[in-house]
Amino acid sequence: MYFVDTIEVPGLGNRSYLAGGPRGAVAVDPPRDIDRMIAAAARRGVRIAYVVETHVHNDYVTGGLELARLTGAAYLVPAGARVAYERVPVRDGDSVEIDADLTLRAVATPGHTPHHTAYVLQEGGRAVAAFTGGSLLIGTVGRPDLVEPRLTGELARAQHASAHRLAAELPEETAVLPTHGFGSFCSAGRATDTTTTIGRERVTNEALVKDADTFVAELLAGLDDVPAYYAHMGPTNADGPAPVDLTPAAPADAEEIAARLAAGEWVVDLRNRVAFAEGHVAGSVNFEAEGQLATYLAWLLPWGKPVTLLAESPDQLAHAQRELVRVGIDRPAAASTGSPADWLREGERPRGFPRGTFAELAKVYGAEGVVVLDVRRDSERAGGHIAGSAHIPVHQLRDRLGEIPDGTVWVHCAGGMRAGIAASLLDAAGHDVVAVDDGFAAAADAGLPLSRITPARAHERTGADGDAVLLDVREPEEWAAGHAPAAVHAPLSALTAGTPLPPHARNRPLITICRSGRRSQEAATLLRARGADVVDVTGGMPAWEEAGLPVVTEARAGAPAAEAMADAIAGPAPRPTLDVAPGPARTASGSPESGAPLGTTGGPAA
Amino acid sequence: MYFVDTIEVPGLGNRSYLAGGPRGAVAVDPPRDIDRMIAAAARRGVRIAYVVETHVHNDYVTGGLELARLTGAAYLVPAGARVAYERVPVRDGDSVEIDADLTLRAVATPGHTPHHTAYVLQEGGRAVAAFTGGSLLIGTVGRPDLVEPRLTGELARAQHASAHRLAAELPEETAVLPTHGFGSFCSAGRATDTTTTIGRERVTNEALVKDADTFVAELLAGLDDVPAYYAHMGPTNADGPAPVDLTPAAPADAEEIAARLAAGEWVVDLRNRVAFAEGHVAGSVNFEAEGQLATYLAWLLPWGKPVTLLAESPDQLAHAQRELVRVGIDRPAAASTGSPADWLREGERPRGFPRGTFAELAKVYGAEGVVVLDVRRDSERAGGHIAGSAHIPVHQLRDRLGEIPDGTVWVHCAGGMRAGIAASLLDAAGHDVVAVDDGFAAAADAGLPLSRITPARAHERTGADGDAVLLDVREPEEWAAGHAPAAVHAPLSALTAGTPLPPHARNRPLITICRSGRRSQEAATLLRARGADVVDVTGGMPAWEEAGLPVVTEARAGAPAAEAMADAIAGPAPRPTLDVAPGPARTASGSPESGAPLGTTGGPAA
Repeated sequence: MYFVDTIEVPGLGNRSYLAGGPRGAVAVDPPRDIDRMIAAAARRGVRIAYVVETHVHNDYVTGGLELARLTGAAYLVPAGARVAYERVPVRDGDSVEIDADLTLRAVATPGHTPHHTAYVLQEGGRAVAAFTGGSLLIGTVGRPDLVEPRLTGELARAQHASAHRLAAELPEETAVLPTHGFGSFCSAGRATDTTTTIGRERVTNEALVKDADTFVAELLAGLDDVPAYYAHMGPTNADGPAPVDLTPAAPADAEEIAARLAAGEWVVDLRNRVAFAEGHVAGSVNFEAEGQLATYLAWLLPWGKPVTLLAESPDQLAHAQRELVRVGIDRPAAASTGSPADWLREGERPRGFPRGTFAELAKVYGAEGVVVLDVRRDSERAGGHIAGSAHIPVHQLRDRLGEIPDGTVWVHCAGGMRAGIAASLLDAAGHDVVAVDDGFAAAADAGLPLSRITPARAHERTGADGDAVLLDVREPEEWAAGHAPAAVHAPLSALTAGTPLPPHARNRPLITICRSGRRSQEAATLLRARGADVVDVTGGMPAWEEAGLPVVTEARAGAPAAEAMADAIAGPAPRPTLDVAPGPARTASGSPESGAPLGTTGGPAA
Repeated sequence: MYFVDTIEVPGLGNRSYLAGGPRGAVAVDPPRDIDRMIAAAARRGVRIAYVVETHVHNDYVTGGLELARLTGAAYLVPAGARVAYERVPVRDGDSVEIDADLTLRAVATPGHTPHHTAYVLQEGGRAVAAFTGGSLLIGTVGRPDLVEPRLTGELARAQHASAHRLAAELPEETAVLPTHGFGSFCSAGRATDTTTTIGRERVTNEALVKDADTFVAELLAGLDDVPAYYAHMGPTNADGPAPVDLTPAAPADAEEIAARLAAGEWVVDLRNRVAFAEGHVAGSVNFEAEGQLATYLAWLLPWGKPVTLLAESPDQLAHAQRELVRVGIDRPAAASTGSPADWLREGERPRGFPRGTFAELAKVYGAEGVVVLDVRRDSERAGGHIAGSAHIPVHQLRDRLGEIPDGTVWVHCAGGMRAGIAASLLDAAGHDVVAVDDGFAAAADAGLPLSRITPARAHERTGADGDAVLLDVREPEEWAAGHAPAAVHAPLSALTAGTPLPPHARNRPLITICRSGRRSQEAATLLRARGADVVDVTGGMPAWEEAGLPVVTEARAGAPAAEAMADAIAGPAPRPTLDVAPGPARTASGSPESGAPLGTTGGPAA
């Protein structure tokens, strides 16, 4: 009988595995801190006979080389990986015996990297589990863009083929045991499940249910930012990482902390963001020990810059040191435990800044000197943001401090963790800051004006009791194929050409909608420049329909409007784009379709 | 009698110095390849008794530690620098004897780094030369933003004070011998002269002729992009760099080159861009051995990624290897000399792409499928660019390949070198590319439409025989204080509010001008969105006046125009912003001032 133990690395969203029989075992993709793997083998009473890598990792420093050296295991690395150390090169089809009747077979699965190899655990000749590394993940696959941009297109295609190969060759009950995909940035999508099989993936995995062209196009279009430190993991792993060193760092006193700050080094306070905001050493930055410490500190810290750690307890410090060696931040330059009182020199006072909620922000929003800063990623912001907010993703903040407007900066993210990091960076640079420690959903509830809203909210605001006009900016044939009953048709092409809005859509809040969300944003920008109050609908008409909101397919009202606007483009005297005269009242039904646009018939003149 | 020998490092825009008397000498800020410094001492017949660093360098790997070890010299490093190796810490006022009657005195000059120290060479007690490192440069100073953004503001202020200290304490005939500033990105400005003295700097250096506030504000506003590899130089230098290794790299044959490319490694072809464009190994990239090889390759290459070098000769290869160790690209993974015939496998053909000039681009400009890509820095592009061109600075190109539109990409920079690099990256990624090997000045001569033009060109185009209307978008009081005689006044505030242009400015090419160039760009963007053909004037009215072009100060014509536009904002029926009816002809004098804007009087209606 075989066993598989999962070694979780939650900070990075990864898993490693120890698998074997009564006597022998194999360690798959071990993390840098190998003591956990050794302890797992001890608990099982097995000897680690093999250490295998599915690929040269791009997101963490491997513990494989050191684990093999320490245990005397054979170190199996894909033959195509160019590494500087001694290893057993593995080729497609190679097989090793882990224990009696238990073998591990290599399956070339390029995609996440050119040399990526999955390993199939076979008991009595039958596949029971597949260590899929960064190939087949739960519902998705590993990213193909971490090696070299020049290769990304072909790796995406290879990833599709590899997923299909695994699905075709393995029995449906085979457990799929990936390394990435539990919050890892190495994963192309986000998995919600934690276990799966080949059979389940066959019907749910995006690489297996889509044809190659669709899959590749969507995969490449959906790739999000990669933590900057990833660039250093490949070379480190190919060189052969130095042995791990988890001994305590040199203790830092207040003088030492001050001197390091003055030299431009980083002093990282690991306490939770509430404690940090209340009081901290001026110039220090806050990365909470809980949460994704390794990912975000490694992402933001200039590579190789000395780090001093401040923790509230020896346990917190040791935990952080362990997290950090996994991403190559080896041994802090110095460290101290305690509280700001221990870290400040005689006569120095701790610095602090307020925290707030979106409801509190709503009370001061728009006031002189209030700056709203969104530090989420581009992809998150595209789903909607607070109107008028500045946007600098947290990982770019350090390089773009010069762009922060003067004033009190209310900094927010999606949940509060990254806002805490950003607030500490801004505070260290001398800005007046409020850390918004709140979930982004609360922004709408607080009544803050959002640049983009959901279809449901758009429907609410443009219904019978609504305050706003829904503007469908798609072209006539798209409009004719189906639109919201209350929508007014104003194709983007007409708006761009300077055509004015129909009168009943003037001087009222506007909500634009299109197919994908791209033209609706463009239209919103255009109309905003003309002084209108505009938001757009995220996800466009497909999201509208998915939300079960009403759609009419007759072209009765749409076509005339479109024609009227087309006329207006060609006509000699289009209407003003910003009309300060009040338009006719909207019909009580909430449907403005009956109001013929006045664009071509002339309006009030001076 | 003392001597000072200059060791030029032209690829990085730096200088090192060997200075001394008949027997003893000091090496200042030596580069990684220390054999040149040793040879200089040998030629002088002196012993290097001291090696000094003005600061822990951020732009190159120091040779100081190894030079001191090799020669037995004392290694003097500012005491405030936190370094991991043994050295003699130097404090302000410390002095050492280089030779009889020849001393070197340390002067704390923080600014470029917190611990920066200059060294004054004194003969018979009198200062004869100052090794100013990254403090006082020729006409400018070292950048204050290379250490840590949190410290940049205070370092800029310290830099001003340090410059003033040197100017105050040293006799006017003292030679100023900086390390940076000969094309170095460490320099805040660009020097054109190559020698200077304290007396000369007192009347020309921007830090010495401006008050602290003005200097700091201008310094911080003018900082340009920093090569990404700079982030690695500080930590490397603080750790103590490994000894240099200039032995030949392992030879690479065609199979090896192909395997390395398939693994995602970089293969760099060092030949000139003409040869590369004619034929090269598919997937390889082109960084010419001549030019700023070290800066650009270190900037673009992911840190630590293995590099294979292809050169046309052993000399070219050795030269490149020497350039690269200076920036920490140690020993290539492999290398080969010859031509593509030697680097391609049996049956493979070299890949190539065309080169072109701006005149050739002008012939196809605007045609279907022709994409113009500008790879200059933001600051260069702000001075004017080809209308409709895409913009990705060359150092961002690798990460932004996904943004390149489909089509044939005509890629240009300011002179051709960076366009060659960019073309090679695009070609490696499978794009259809033409490398524009031409100076940017030729773009205007070729008749390519520019987004920004010089005041002189604006004057030409808006004179009596001109085709365009000059639109002054400043506010009324600025307009009243002086404007171009032919200008039409249309304040940006009015344009933003949707106010239409005066009729005689409609349906004609527009040239916007303001004070700094910021509002004119904004206005151009706005008017372009309304369908107008607009460029703006770089440098605004100050540049116009500097160019000796005419200015009238009477408010005669301007005020009414401004009032009319203000009326239009408040009035009930502003004119269309895009008027398709032809406006009245402009008066032959070229002065449109007499044409009262029709905005408030109503125009043709449908």
